[in-house]
Amino acid sequence: MTLDTPSGEDSLIARYFKPLATDPGAFGLMDDAAVIKADGHDLVVNTDAIVEGVHYLPDDPPDTIARKALRVNLSDLAAKGAEPAGFVLTLALRQSDESWLSAFGRGLGEDARTFGCPLLGGDTVSTPGPVMISITAWGRVPLGRMVHRFGARPGDRVMVTGTIGDASLGLAVLQGKPAAAALAADPAAREMLVGRYRVPQPRNALAKAVRDFATASMDVSDGLAGDLAKLCAASRVTADVNLPKIPISPAAATLLAVGAADLEAMISGGDDFEILCTVPADRCEAFGTEARRAGVAVAEIGVITAGDGHPRLLNAEGQAIPLKRLSFSHF
Amino acid sequence: MTLDTPSGEDSLIARYFKPLATDPGAFGLMDDAAVIKADGHDLVVNTDAIVEGVHYLPDDPPDTIARKALRVNLSDLAAKGAEPAGFVLTLALRQSDESWLSAFGRGLGEDARTFGCPLLGGDTVSTPGPVMISITAWGRVPLGRMVHRFGARPGDRVMVTGTIGDASLGLAVLQGKPAAAALAADPAAREMLVGRYRVPQPRNALAKAVRDFATASMDVSDGLAGDLAKLCAASRVTADVNLPKIPISPAAATLLAVGAADLEAMISGGDDFEILCTVPADRCEAFGTEARRAGVAVAEIGVITAGDGHPRLLNAEGQAIPLKRLSFSHF
Repeated sequence: MTLDTPSGEDSLIARYFKPLATDPGAFGLMDDAAVIKADGHDLVVNTDAIVEGVHYLPDDPPDTIARKALRVNLSDLAAKGAEPAGFVLTLALRQSDESWLSAFGRGLGEDARTFGCPLLGGDTVSTPGPVMISITAWGRVPLGRMVHRFGARPGDRVMVTGTIGDASLGLAVLQGKPAAAALAADPAAREMLVGRYRVPQPRNALAKAVRDFATASMDVSDGLAGDLAKLCAASRVTADVNLPKIPISPAAATLLAVGAADLEAMISGGDDFEILCTVPADRCEAFGTEARRAGVAVAEIGVITAGDGHPRLLNAEGQAIPLKRLSFSHF
Repeated sequence: MTLDTPSGEDSLIARYFKPLATDPGAFGLMDDAAVIKADGHDLVVNTDAIVEGVHYLPDDPPDTIARKALRVNLSDLAAKGAEPAGFVLTLALRQSDESWLSAFGRGLGEDARTFGCPLLGGDTVSTPGPVMISITAWGRVPLGRMVHRFGARPGDRVMVTGTIGDASLGLAVLQGKPAAAALAADPAAREMLVGRYRVPQPRNALAKAVRDFATASMDVSDGLAGDLAKLCAASRVTADVNLPKIPISPAAATLLAVGAADLEAMISGGDDFEILCTVPADRCEAFGTEARRAGVAVAEIGVITAGDGHPRLLNAEGQAIPLKRLSFSHF
């Protein structure tokens, strides 16, 4: 890791990131490494990177890029039932752009405070290619209490937070696809969808309820359909999902109604960063109560069944709908 | 993080990295996060990235690229007095190249075993730009025992492990600079220097001795002169270094003798990955004994003095030599 004297790289860190590193374990980013105080908890570690032009658009505001980079990691911690405890940052930049870095640092610092997840260290490197932000974050769970992808059992209900598909529609809007024209007269809906693409809303408020009620859990980052298939495969079960029960926003419903959105694309598109989890049938009511208390909307969208095929997606008539693709893949 | 079904990205991980993830906390890379078991130690966390064309050459062998990516992090842990405990990997690739990934995974797995630092998780992302490998590694120290950059006191001796400048000469050889021609008849020396550039030798065997004897410590990654300046600035002291005492290899000495190497470039060049630390004068002998026991060469190159200027570099006549640049900087 790097610090604050005397090279240019070090002053970058001093200027933009040292103000964020207020945790005692960060040593003001003045040292080569940080300390995570160990205690009677397990530390859950997650790493996720975002790349310019792949996970965000080059002209996205830098503060939203920073928030997204941190929040995709916070979303994983939430789904694992962990309370955020800290993160380290690797920033690969083409050049040092003061106004970009200043806004990036501001967004990152605000989110670090909001989510109680302090910056403990980092590395900046130069690259001739696209900007890349890699974050490793960790969180605490009581010993042995991380919630896994495996653990779902037949009869468990499939639950999902928030709404699905907004982020992929926000990207479509930014790319000038039909959704953009359809929303020309509704700037509030446009802004909401774009906001969902640029700034995920990780469900960290739900972490304790996930720990207390979920048999299996993961965040939805590569599309609901594909991510549910992964959860089922890890749990050696399958599922029946009722498409009409998948929660969608009013803006998405409007776009679906006018043919400017496609449900299949919405459930196989990326960037939702909602929690997908399974809860025993007799505990769903209590889980719902805890979720309401935490201020997070949850919807029951299906049921886990025995078997090893792909989850079935059932329309309003109970007929299984085949999907052309399950999820976003980089390769 | 990502796992092993069903997208292309996930099979990449299953194929090349799952065999490496044997630590119980990694859950076979089948989950979204890993668990670091907490205990009565501090966990020291470090993150460092390497970028194709910046930190390694595009045609470097993939197994050495993997080793370098891990070892630059292991080197930081060693300098902080920490015993390696695990790491997570972010791999940004242009495309999925099986033979490259296979060799990369093999090198990474061998080093993870050699250094007792298991892979606990990771993320692969696509990029149109250069390959980038970002690693976050952590290690254990007894509570409060991480060795800092600050802590050096006037009178402490400045110690360095191994030899300085070989890696920068190895890079010069690979770039066809004068060092290459000068070594045309000495393939063994050429190979040694290139090896020092491609595969750092982190001094993890010395971690306990650093913890027990050093008042301040860091690894030499951006050039001895600049890194010593950083250590001194953090400790609010300065230093006198005797240039003739800086340990250099026979190959480097040969190149210096024929004018195909430059001492100033060697001590301001990067990639040494040796430990630079300060030890009280009356403890140097015991430190040396421990270092010999650990099989790591250490040399006393100077002394910490009071003051806040740049460290002085003294030639054989005791005259201070000014440097044109102190260290490598990305920006």
